[in-house]
Amino acid sequence: MTTSWSNRMSDRVFGLKPSAIREILKVTQQPEVISFAGGLPAPELFPVERIQQATDEILQSDEATRALQYHPTEGHVGLRTWLVKRMRGRGIPCGLDNVLITSGSQQSLDLIGKVLISRDDVVAVERPTFLGMMQAWDVYGARYDGLRMDDDGVEPDDLERALKGGAKAVYIIPNFHNPTGITTSAARRRTLTEITDRYGVPVVEDDPYGQLRYEGDAVAAMAAFDAERLGIDPRSADGPVDRGNVLFLGSFSKELCPGLRVSWIVGPTPIINALVQAKQAADLHTSTLAQMIVARAVQDGFIDAHIQTLTGVYKQRRDLMLGYMQTHFPSSVSWTRPAGGLFIWVRLPEGTNATSLLDRCLEKKVAFVPGHPFFPDRAGENTFRLNFSNAQPAQIEVGITRIAEVLRRHL
Amino acid sequence: MTTSWSNRMSDRVFGLKPSAIREILKVTQQPEVISFAGGLPAPELFPVERIQQATDEILQSDEATRALQYHPTEGHVGLRTWLVKRMRGRGIPCGLDNVLITSGSQQSLDLIGKVLISRDDVVAVERPTFLGMMQAWDVYGARYDGLRMDDDGVEPDDLERALKGGAKAVYIIPNFHNPTGITTSAARRRTLTEITDRYGVPVVEDDPYGQLRYEGDAVAAMAAFDAERLGIDPRSADGPVDRGNVLFLGSFSKELCPGLRVSWIVGPTPIINALVQAKQAADLHTSTLAQMIVARAVQDGFIDAHIQTLTGVYKQRRDLMLGYMQTHFPSSVSWTRPAGGLFIWVRLPEGTNATSLLDRCLEKKVAFVPGHPFFPDRAGENTFRLNFSNAQPAQIEVGITRIAEVLRRHL
Repeated sequence: MTTSWSNRMSDRVFGLKPSAIREILKVTQQPEVISFAGGLPAPELFPVERIQQATDEILQSDEATRALQYHPTEGHVGLRTWLVKRMRGRGIPCGLDNVLITSGSQQSLDLIGKVLISRDDVVAVERPTFLGMMQAWDVYGARYDGLRMDDDGVEPDDLERALKGGAKAVYIIPNFHNPTGITTSAARRRTLTEITDRYGVPVVEDDPYGQLRYEGDAVAAMAAFDAERLGIDPRSADGPVDRGNVLFLGSFSKELCPGLRVSWIVGPTPIINALVQAKQAADLHTSTLAQMIVARAVQDGFIDAHIQTLTGVYKQRRDLMLGYMQTHFPSSVSWTRPAGGLFIWVRLPEGTNATSLLDRCLEKKVAFVPGHPFFPDRAGENTFRLNFSNAQPAQIEVGITRIAEVLRRHL
Repeated sequence: MTTSWSNRMSDRVFGLKPSAIREILKVTQQPEVISFAGGLPAPELFPVERIQQATDEILQSDEATRALQYHPTEGHVGLRTWLVKRMRGRGIPCGLDNVLITSGSQQSLDLIGKVLISRDDVVAVERPTFLGMMQAWDVYGARYDGLRMDDDGVEPDDLERALKGGAKAVYIIPNFHNPTGITTSAARRRTLTEITDRYGVPVVEDDPYGQLRYEGDAVAAMAAFDAERLGIDPRSADGPVDRGNVLFLGSFSKELCPGLRVSWIVGPTPIINALVQAKQAADLHTSTLAQMIVARAVQDGFIDAHIQTLTGVYKQRRDLMLGYMQTHFPSSVSWTRPAGGLFIWVRLPEGTNATSLLDRCLEKKVAFVPGHPFFPDRAGENTFRLNFSNAQPAQIEVGITRIAEVLRRHL
C-alpha cells in the first residue's frame, strides 16, 4: 500500500473536521429548494460595475504591474491608511502598524489560532457560537467554554467563572451575533472588557456584520471600550498602539463582496507583529490586485452609500421574514429580532428535534440550518437558524409559510 | 501592563522567525542599488492586457456575481479541469478530486505542514533549500535533515541514510532548484522515487519554475516517475487517484504573475481531502475572481505562448549574466549553470564570508543574497545566490562587473 504514509498524518488532522453544516448546505442547494440555510450576502447587490471600474483603472494605469507583483505581507498601504481612519472614526485607536490585511476573516481566525492557541487551551465563547471559528481553532487543539447569553449578550458572571477556570482567550461577535442575531449592549461591552482586562486575557472581537444595522444606534466596538478604559484616545494616538486586549476583526465580505477575500485585523503591535510573521509563513500576502480593487472601490464615500443600499434591502427582508413568522409560526415557538446582520434564531419547545423537522421541511422544498452544530457541546437540538439576506421577498413568503406548516403539524 | 497576554502566545510562535533574507532584501531595494537579491519575475513581462481582457469578460458576463461570491474550497472547476489535462500531459495521473487550488505555493506548503508535520518530525531536504518552506514548516515544529547534492540532484545514498534515520517526509525542488539552479536528472528522479516508495514516505515536489527551461529537454516530474512505478497510467486513469507518494506543487506565480495568488496541489485523494479540510479552516477558498481570471487567461494556448516569451527573455538574461561572470569573476570562484529558472548559485573559496562581501558590494550599489540562510544548519557562509530574471541587460553588465571588482579585491 503506497499511501501508508497518509495514515501517519499529524495529529492536527484530528482537528480537521468537515464543517458540520456543509452536508446540510449541499442538500439545500438543490435549485427547487427555498433555502434560508446559508449565510451568503445577496449576489444581486454586489457592486459589479464599481469593481469593474476600479479594476480597469488599476490595470490601465502605471499601477498595473504593481497590482500583479508580489507585495509586502502587511498589506496595501493605501487600503490600510483608509482603514486606520475608519477604525479611529469608530473609536478604535490604531496606526498603520496596527492593521494587517488578511484573505478573509476565516484567515484572521486561523492566524490568531496559530499565534495564540496551544493544545488544550480553553477559549471562552458565546453559546452558541460561530462554526468557522471552531473549525479554525480545532486544528490547534482549542477547547471551548460556552458562556450563557441573555438579550444583552454574554452574562458577566459566567465570563468571570470561565476566566477564573483558566480560559486563555475570549471570542465574541458583539454585533448581530452568528447564529443568534443578538447584539451585546453598550453597558455589557463595558463590563466584559473590564473583566477581561482584570484577568489579562485577549478578546477576539469578530465584527463581520457590524455595518449592517437596520434600526437603533450603533454601539461602540469592544476595542473602543477597551481603549477608553486604558486611557488611549483614538484621535490623539497617531503612532502605533502597543497595548490593549482586543483583536478587532473586520471584513469586506459582507460590506462589498466575499469573492475578493479581503479582510483585516486591528490589534496592538506585539500581536500584530506575530500575526504578520504567521501570515508570511502562511501565504506571503493577500492578492495584490484584490487589495487594490477594494482600496479603490471603497473611496469617496462609495462604501457608505453601498452599505445604505444593503441595509435598505436587508431590513425589508428581515421585516418580511419576522412578519410571516409572527403570523404563521405556532405560539410555542420563539425567536430573536435582530437589529442587523443576516440571521434570525429560532427556539422550538424543549424536546423538539430541529434536524428531524429539517427533513420534513426538505420534503416541502424549504431549508434552514439546525442549531446544534453551533453549540460547542452540540446541545441546542431544539434550535435552528434562518438567513434572510439571500432570499427574495416571494421566497420568504412561500418558504416561511411552508416551515410554519411543518411546525404546526409536528409540534 | 495590559498586553501581558502577548507573552503567553502559543509555543508555535517560536517557529515564527522573520525571513532571514527579508532585512537584506529591504536594504537592496534602495532605488540606486542594482539588486540580484530577490526572486521576482520581471514585471515588464506581466500579461496585463490579457488579464484585463479576462477580467472584463468575467465582470461583463452573467458570471460576474459568481466571481464575487463565496466559492467551494476545492477551487474553480474550470481551472481544475484545465489543470487535470495539463498535469496528465506531463505524465501525472489525476482526476478533478486530485487537484486543490491554493493561494500561492506558500499556502500549499503551509497546508501540507499543517496536515503532515508533527512537532520534531524530521524532513529530508536538499542542502541548501528553499527558505519559504522552512518558514512554513518551522511553525509546526519541523526539523530538517539536509541531503548532499551533486550536479544530478540529491545523492541517493544520503536520502537512504536520512530515511533510515526516521525522516518522515522529503521536500525536493527538482527543476532549477532554489537556490542552486540544479536540475535533478531523470535517472536520479527514478532512483529517488524508488527509495521513497520503499520507505513509504511522502515526497513534496515543489515545481514553481518547471516551465522556465532555456535549454535541453524537459524531465518528467517525480510524480510521473512515481506513477509509472506504481503502474498508474496517466492517460487511462480518469477517476480520482487514491495512491501515490508524491504531492506535486504547481504555481501561476512565475508563469503568469504572483499578485493574483493562484497555485495548486496535485496528490492522491486521502491527502487532498485532508488538505481541503485544512484549507477550509484556513481561508475558506482562494479569491473566486482571481481563479476565474487565471482560468480565462490561460486558455487557447495563451499560457504556452506567454511562457515562450518569458523563456526567451530570461534565457538572454541568464546568458548575459553567465557571460559577464565568466569574463570578470576570479578563477577561484565557481558557479552553477542553470538550465532554467531564476537563479545562479556562486561558491567562493572556503573561508570567505559572503555576508562581508555583500557589505562591500552594497557600498558599490550592487546586491545579492548570501547563501547561509538557505542552509538548514546555517552553513554555506562562502556561497551566494544571484537572480537574473528581474534585471535589465545593462544592469546585469554593470552589476556583475561591480561584484567582480569586489571579488578581485577581497579574495
